[in-house]
Amino acid sequence: MERKVPGGYNGRVLRVNLTNHKVTTDPIDDLFCRKYLGGVGFIAYYLLTEVRPGIDPLSPENKIIFALGPLTGLTLGGCARHAVGAKSPLTGGIAKSEVGEYWGSQFKRAGFDVLIVEGKAEQPVYLWIHNGKAEIKEALHLWGKNTKETQETIRSELADAKIRVAMIGPGGENLVKYASIMHGPFDAAGRGGMGAIMGSKNLKAVAVRGDSMPPIANSDGVKKVISWLKENMDLVKAFSDFGTGAPMVRFEKLGNLPIRNFRDGGFPNVDMITPQVIKETMRVGMEGCFACPVRCKKVVEVEDPYKVDRAYGGPEYETIGALGSACGIDDVKAIAKGSELCNAYSIDTISTGVSIAFAMECFENGLLTTEDTHGVELEFGNAEAMLKMIELIARREGIGDLLAEGSARAAEKIGKGTEAFAIQVKKQELPMHEPRLSKSLGLGYMVNPHGADHMDSMIDIFFSAFTEQPNVTIPDAIPLGLEPAPFEDIGPRKVVLFKAFQSKRIIADSLVFCHFIPFSYRQMAELTSAVTGWDTSVMEHFRIAERILTMCRLFNVREGFTAADDKLPARFFEPTKGGALSEKPLNFEQMEKAKRYYYFLMGWDESGVPMNEKLEELGIDHLGTIS
Amino acid sequence: MERKVPGGYNGRVLRVNLTNHKVTTDPIDDLFCRKYLGGVGFIAYYLLTEVRPGIDPLSPENKIIFALGPLTGLTLGGCARHAVGAKSPLTGGIAKSEVGEYWGSQFKRAGFDVLIVEGKAEQPVYLWIHNGKAEIKEALHLWGKNTKETQETIRSELADAKIRVAMIGPGGENLVKYASIMHGPFDAAGRGGMGAIMGSKNLKAVAVRGDSMPPIANSDGVKKVISWLKENMDLVKAFSDFGTGAPMVRFEKLGNLPIRNFRDGGFPNVDMITPQVIKETMRVGMEGCFACPVRCKKVVEVEDPYKVDRAYGGPEYETIGALGSACGIDDVKAIAKGSELCNAYSIDTISTGVSIAFAMECFENGLLTTEDTHGVELEFGNAEAMLKMIELIARREGIGDLLAEGSARAAEKIGKGTEAFAIQVKKQELPMHEPRLSKSLGLGYMVNPHGADHMDSMIDIFFSAFTEQPNVTIPDAIPLGLEPAPFEDIGPRKVVLFKAFQSKRIIADSLVFCHFIPFSYRQMAELTSAVTGWDTSVMEHFRIAERILTMCRLFNVREGFTAADDKLPARFFEPTKGGALSEKPLNFEQMEKAKRYYYFLMGWDESGVPMNEKLEELGIDHLGTIS
Repeated sequence: MERKVPGGYNGRVLRVNLTNHKVTTDPIDDLFCRKYLGGVGFIAYYLLTEVRPGIDPLSPENKIIFALGPLTGLTLGGCARHAVGAKSPLTGGIAKSEVGEYWGSQFKRAGFDVLIVEGKAEQPVYLWIHNGKAEIKEALHLWGKNTKETQETIRSELADAKIRVAMIGPGGENLVKYASIMHGPFDAAGRGGMGAIMGSKNLKAVAVRGDSMPPIANSDGVKKVISWLKENMDLVKAFSDFGTGAPMVRFEKLGNLPIRNFRDGGFPNVDMITPQVIKETMRVGMEGCFACPVRCKKVVEVEDPYKVDRAYGGPEYETIGALGSACGIDDVKAIAKGSELCNAYSIDTISTGVSIAFAMECFENGLLTTEDTHGVELEFGNAEAMLKMIELIARREGIGDLLAEGSARAAEKIGKGTEAFAIQVKKQELPMHEPRLSKSLGLGYMVNPHGADHMDSMIDIFFSAFTEQPNVTIPDAIPLGLEPAPFEDIGPRKVVLFKAFQSKRIIADSLVFCHFIPFSYRQMAELTSAVTGWDTSVMEHFRIAERILTMCRLFNVREGFTAADDKLPARFFEPTKGGALSEKPLNFEQMEKAKRYYYFLMGWDESGVPMNEKLEELGIDHLGTIS
Repeated sequence: MERKVPGGYNGRVLRVNLTNHKVTTDPIDDLFCRKYLGGVGFIAYYLLTEVRPGIDPLSPENKIIFALGPLTGLTLGGCARHAVGAKSPLTGGIAKSEVGEYWGSQFKRAGFDVLIVEGKAEQPVYLWIHNGKAEIKEALHLWGKNTKETQETIRSELADAKIRVAMIGPGGENLVKYASIMHGPFDAAGRGGMGAIMGSKNLKAVAVRGDSMPPIANSDGVKKVISWLKENMDLVKAFSDFGTGAPMVRFEKLGNLPIRNFRDGGFPNVDMITPQVIKETMRVGMEGCFACPVRCKKVVEVEDPYKVDRAYGGPEYETIGALGSACGIDDVKAIAKGSELCNAYSIDTISTGVSIAFAMECFENGLLTTEDTHGVELEFGNAEAMLKMIELIARREGIGDLLAEGSARAAEKIGKGTEAFAIQVKKQELPMHEPRLSKSLGLGYMVNPHGADHMDSMIDIFFSAFTEQPNVTIPDAIPLGLEPAPFEDIGPRKVVLFKAFQSKRIIADSLVFCHFIPFSYRQMAELTSAVTGWDTSVMEHFRIAERILTMCRLFNVREGFTAADDKLPARFFEPTKGGALSEKPLNFEQMEKAKRYYYFLMGWDESGVPMNEKLEELGIDHLGTIS
């Protein structure tokens, strides 16, 4: 498990072909690592160069890629993450989803940076990766099991309680289009349907364990950042105290919290479902990812009326929104139960909740009836109905089979104008931040290669939630020469801010680094230098971000996506019913104009297709075609 | 003369109206300084906002602006410079020219950052600026004097030998279109005809003296850079040893040295006119600008056959090329004499030499005859003829009156296809680096708002002169994520490198800082922070560069310039006659393509007009129009 540090930063790719059971490892050199960084950068590279256009995402031809970055596994808060990617069964485009927990740190210590799984096993299998070796192991006995039991069984049969397990439950096995990959029972690589890819390959789990971490070029540089975080823990105090969603009441007031499928504004009972209430009523602990002092992950326990197993953690903000307010539900125990079920079955809480909200709006409008729902009164606010739907979706039973396809495909099947209720971009359901409040977020949803995603850009929302200033900025972008822009604006200056923030996030998703630790652009560059030995900079990071985003775009263009796919649902060009945004619809032309300026800034033409010159400039003109 | 440093960096503008003799001073605040930086940035701002489109550059409506930057006057090598700008009588567009010496440091110590001179004096005057005050003084007795006598007389009548004088000689008085402003007898703000603007205003000189330097935000930061330079003087050793032009023999071999009006390749006698020969045969000393340890300025003395006064310094590389090889002249004493004359008369050695070379080629082709030249046999290689022409140009006598208009206007008047011999872009004569050798330099000549200029970009030439690598790079741009590009290339990646280097230079011209001190991008940003207290960065510098270049572009667009004006003379699409480039013409379509990609990178449309969105993004949309 040697790694050469002289010659710079490098890594190893573990490749497992489940069709022929071939396992190989290949080195990736310093130049490659510096060019594509890691995480989503690696994923985009391998998908572009190895996955043929037009394949069925659930066929053996698709590949699933687990990619770490140079920061993954560092004993520093925020560095526990890795990315999982593939051609998405939900969007049909490129997908990637990041997750924390300890899996990434163990995979790195096992000697690897990338896992590429190809083909399809005849029978269920799992992978056992430890200290430079990988075995394909039989998993028939695990098939059908929930995630908690899967992990327990694997740890038990490998006789090592410290093994970390990435895995699917029944949702992944049943190819729910938005199945997640659970890393342990409560950390999800949630978005894009990565769990369905595992399911389609008969891959139940990837268990990892390792003992050696690669050397760091300049450990003093890393220590400096560790010290900084120690001294600035107040910046993440809200996460430590409450986990995600601490500003929930303010979110509702501002109009940021989606209510009843993004239709309504105002959710008076918001204070019944907050992280503060969770803390007071059901929280039994907080957990953290590897090496992270923040410990933002709620652990809840409920006995009555639902038994909620603390092994499955507790609901994040996105889950509270999606299974709660988006479904008109103010029953925090039901939300906690729903969170547990989604984690047990490995389905994405966001797409699950918004798909259920879609069905509820259909039901309220008589476009679905109790005949379709097996008698369930699928009304907004019906907590029991929500829980029932989760079960049905994970098992693809009854209407669950329809909703397991996601809201867009469900609407296509139902017809009758229900498309208006499918709140998605590129068929991926919107997360729990309201684009009518934040135009830059709306732009992010539109242009994100992975479909609507809460990890894109939320500069306006951060700003409106935590300050009262009229001008929006990214504080650490001021030294970069990026001036503030008015809150209501989505003009060129705001688009530049958006791009800067999107770049920061795509770099974090490549390093791979947690968005919750508020490192500045500069700190991220310095940390990269410290770990890799590269003399790098914020500017190089911006350039790499442009490269990676353009690679993702290339993949989607190849799959037939056009500028027309970069659009928000019609709902957002109408105001909310009541609430803070009851007179604030988005303006279609304004958003289209912003989109075009974003294309321009990226070096993409008016159709959103990367210019050949830009590809050449970024050194990725050779990645464009594959036959 | 107080300056507030709390609240950041700021400055003062001294405004002198020669028509009504009004003198005013105005503060410029921190926001303004950070947005436009100084030097060319300030010049572009004031020209855009105060000079009406379409005015005659030599009318009282034009303004001449002397602009320092935050670094000007610092006791650090390279910080002696300032910029002078106006609407150019040569190009009709924006002009700016930087110069070192001690003038800028004294003007800053007098309490000012910018001098704007407006209107026109009825009689010759000069300005006397000292410690926060400015007086308009009568100068009838100075009119007609050479620069050396002008400075001596002013120092004598103001009884202060330490006064620094910016001034014109007869060339400026006679409105030679490329008259320079001499700062002392041998430092020229040479390009763009700034001396003619002074002449048109009856402004003979600007004398300055001051005693107080504004405070520095972080003097340790500045000391760090001073120490670095002290320890790295070997990087500038060639300048210290020989002044400009040390690699002259290699330049000739590569094809970089223009021979006979850029027509020929190969100048076997190049070793007769090198700085090395000058050192051995006529150099009596080296001079430096304020606070600079490099001391790159040759001082020569010749007795026979020409008396060359050491007070006028000695020929720089550009002068050796323009009055030497470009005219086919290998007589180093004649070149030294020509340098002295140009400095005494205040005319730009480059445009002078290339205009004479133009005339020589016309003469050789029979398109000018001895009838036109008052009997002078104006052949390539005729040193006496070259010296005679300088006299005639400065006095606008005979053919000198024609050549004082520059080669483009002279060709227009002569007709008969002589346009082919006018080696200029935007009517400004090319400096002494061959675009056929360096495509990025050619692109620089094309798109530079000030016409062909040697200060733009010479990345390929630096590279070819000093290394043997196949790939061109800017070493300190590697950490910025800008990869090398092949030497022969002018594709997107090279255009990006060009833009990066152009940005570096425009920032240096705004700070104002000498191009000869090889500070990295990072050092320039750190130095800016140290002086101003701004938390700035390389990225902000790049952004400011984009802003300033776009402002210059806006000015030219307003004056009617189009993409068609961004073109090289036809000569360069043919190979040289003999020499290293005898089979290496430029390719027109390739250069046009590079130009279009540069426009794109700048946010200018295909016609080279800045997009409204880009103006808005850069916060300069309000600068576009003036009535």
